Amino acid sequence: MSYTNFPSKLLENAVNEFSKLPGIGRKTALRLVLHLLNQPKEDVHLFGSSIIQLRDEIKHCTSCYNISDTSMCDICASPKRDKTTICVVESIRDVMSIERTQQYNGIYHVLGGIISPMDGIGPSDLRIQPLIEKADKEDLTEIILALSTTMEGDTTNFYLYKKLKPHQVSVTTIARGVSIGDELEYTDEITLGRSLLNRMPFNQNNQY
Amino acid sequence: MSYTNFPSKLLENAVNEFSKLPGIGRKTALRLVLHLLNQPKEDVHLFGSSIIQLRDEIKHCTSCYNISDTSMCDICASPKRDKTTICVVESIRDVMSIERTQQYNGIYHVLGGIISPMDGIGPSDLRIQPLIEKADKEDLTEIILALSTTMEGDTTNFYLYKKLKPHQVSVTTIARGVSIGDELEYTDEITLGRSLLNRMPFNQNNQY
Ligand SMILES: [Zn+2]
Ligand SMILES: [Zn+2]
Repeated sequence: MSYTNFPSKLLENAVNEFSKLPGIGRKTALRLVLHLLNQPKEDVHLFGSSIIQLRDEIKHCTSCYNISDTSMCDICASPKRDKTTICVVESIRDVMSIERTQQYNGIYHVLGGIISPMDGIGPSDLRIQPLIEKADKEDLTEIILALSTTMEGDTTNFYLYKKLKPHQVSVTTIARGVSIGDELEYTDEITLGRSLLNRMPFNQNNQY
Repeated sequence: MSYTNFPSKLLENAVNEFSKLPGIGRKTALRLVLHLLNQPKEDVHLFGSSIIQLRDEIKHCTSCYNISDTSMCDICASPKRDKTTICVVESIRDVMSIERTQQYNGIYHVLGGIISPMDGIGPSDLRIQPLIEKADKEDLTEIILALSTTMEGDTTNFYLYKKLKPHQVSVTTIARGVSIGDELEYTDEITLGRSLLNRMPFNQNNQY
């Protein structure tokens, strides 16, 4: 029997694409695709084009590297945000997590990852140099390191601290109210907000 | 703070679209969208256009209503398939489930649903009339009812049996090797294959 389980190449193709998504197996992919197949054409066009348009048109803020629809993100562009404090995070998801706490009014610097020798990610793969350059700006008073409380987060904290130490800026880390070993993204808003309020000077002995 | 948690309207739009998918919450939607945002543009285009193309170009087989890239599906078009036996199923997913058992060599009739007064689905919402018309064709000898072993499946079985009884065709149901209350789609291949082999004449007393 030459029949391959899929009654249609178009269906098979769409299921293949959906099952490339993280955490989506072939059974779930088929369920999602058949669901969309039952929706009006316009809705499926909106779905498909939303992700294509996002990928094609998305920009990164030239200052903090947060994603943005414009060349400077809303946070950096806002006159209400305190430009003397930079919060260093791993990813834009962490920016969103911290924004949800409504406890932080400074600006951000998105590293684009974390030092992780296991994954082959070294300092040169991250946006560390632009951060060092910001440290020399006169109006900057504090850099908050808000990385995950994991081994990799601590390695990155220590690396950044060494690089930032010669500069006239206070380097702090979020309080360890965040449970050790947790990723920022999955930390509840209250814990995360409190950790920001209770931030303290970087201390090498206080790490993982 | 006018900032809405989403640093970009394009991102928010894509996350909104993904979270309309069944079983996908906003957190998962964000994870999937950010994953795609990290993929090469070409890959995201392939992803988005695969579902748009499927929706725009998919056909339903004019004979069995299975989905197909052509006006007659591979199963109906195959000279190797036995055209004297029709297996009645709820959905194209059930066609795929039965094909996977490799125990069935007849053709199909996809009802497009099941009688379900709770969901407002009555006989006229299903492809029942075209099935009755097929029953009068001389070369047809058997109609196998392969619906879910639920209350709705049994209601539909009984309705179809009454409609088909006056015609010169044997009406069978798949053996109740399928656990009562299970949906066909989630039945393992061995059980489902055996249920097809052990099919028996429809008997009203043998229902749910
Ligand atoms: Zn920015
Ligand atoms: Zn067909």
